Amino acid sequence: MFIRLDTQTRSKVDLIDITEQVKAAIAEAGVGDGICFIYCPHTTAGIVLNEDWDPTVEADVAMVLDRIVPDTLPYRHGEGNSPAHIKAVLVGNDHFIFVHGGEPALGQWQGIFLAEFDGPRHRSIWIKVVSDADTC
Amino acid sequence: MFIRLDTQTRSKVDLIDITEQVKAAIAEAGVGDGICFIYCPHTTAGIVLNEDWDPTVEADVAMVLDRIVPDTLPYRHGEGNSPAHIKAVLVGNDHFIFVHGGEPALGQWQGIFLAEFDGPRHRSIWIKVVSDADTC
Amino acid sequence: MFIRLDTQTRSKVDLIDITEQVKAAIAEAGVGDGICFIYCPHTTAGIVLNEDWDPTVEADVAMVLDRIVPDTLPYRHGEGNSPAHIKAVLVGNDHFIFVHGGEPALGQWQGIFLAEFDGPRHRSIWIKVVSDADTC
Repeated sequence: MFIRLDTQTRSKVDLIDITEQVKAAIAEAGVGDGICFIYCPHTTAGIVLNEDWDPTVEADVAMVLDRIVPDTLPYRHGEGNSPAHIKAVLVGNDHFIFVHGGEPALGQWQGIFLAEFDGPRHRSIWIKVVSDADTC
Repeated sequence: MFIRLDTQTRSKVDLIDITEQVKAAIAEAGVGDGICFIYCPHTTAGIVLNEDWDPTVEADVAMVLDRIVPDTLPYRHGEGNSPAHIKAVLVGNDHFIFVHGGEPALGQWQGIFLAEFDGPRHRSIWIKVVSDADTC
Repeated sequence: MFIRLDTQTRSKVDLIDITEQVKAAIAEAGVGDGICFIYCPHTTAGIVLNEDWDPTVEADVAMVLDRIVPDTLPYRHGEGNSPAHIKAVLVGNDHFIFVHGGEPALGQWQGIFLAEFDGPRHRSIWIKVVSDADTC
């Protein structure tokens, strides 16, 4: 099975820092050293690993994604959320991080974000932590 | 070793829904709960996890990728397929999904696609399924 | 724990072929069949899996990323390296490859690159190799 995190996004496009929630999931899994797999089961939201020190970086990510995938193109999909689907494909729904000493082994400036592209909504993230030790 | 899926793409740019083939590979691996790793060994095709309910979403993905990586830029690579290489980098060649109860644990609207950017061609996908239970 | 690779990038934007270093890490891990997880702990560099036969492909990847994420946009982040953060998000920091017979199971034309977007700098890559056999 996997651990499920829940979050509520606040606007159409939003980046929610879930680093602390992922840290808690790793603690709940009781894994010392291993790999933490993070999966977003939505098609208009994804996961971003990037700087969590300066929030303007996240605003810049959102700005560039809007420029790459503008709302004004002649999309065929009738629901009006094609840009959100495509942004999710570009950032990805499935990422992993290493676990060391019971903690996420992130780089100095890295954090983990849920990237909302069609909010505000309730969103879930699925987490599975595989232990090096468990692999015999 | 890994399980190999084979498919034939139908046009230059094409998205082939391989969800059922991945499901069959998981059944062949005999894994109940675990992680399914999906790898595309090609450099002008990739893998996309996104909506498989409305095929116009896939057409919109292809349209935006053509706009981001147009055929008309002054590419240096002589074979004329640089846009295909770059699109593959943007969507990614390596993705994973969770497995639960012997089935792919996908979100409600998610499917798995081979994303062809330089077809039509014969393409392969490699699959490895790691069981939670196998990890002791 | 994980194996750490170190490299020195040569320019602002640079793609360094690390395929041989990854091969050596797999040999060091002593894994015959399994999965090699490759993680970049930086926020202005990423990892690219793509053609390593013709280096002009890599130049074309860099050219298109510059066009998608130009230096001239009105970025809010004060350090001037927002484009590098966003390019890293687009190519990804976390990738995996399969291992077969003690070697990376790459496609015929595939190589593994560190993608530098804010160099020249010293960079690290973290590697963890999980053996099929270890999983009982």
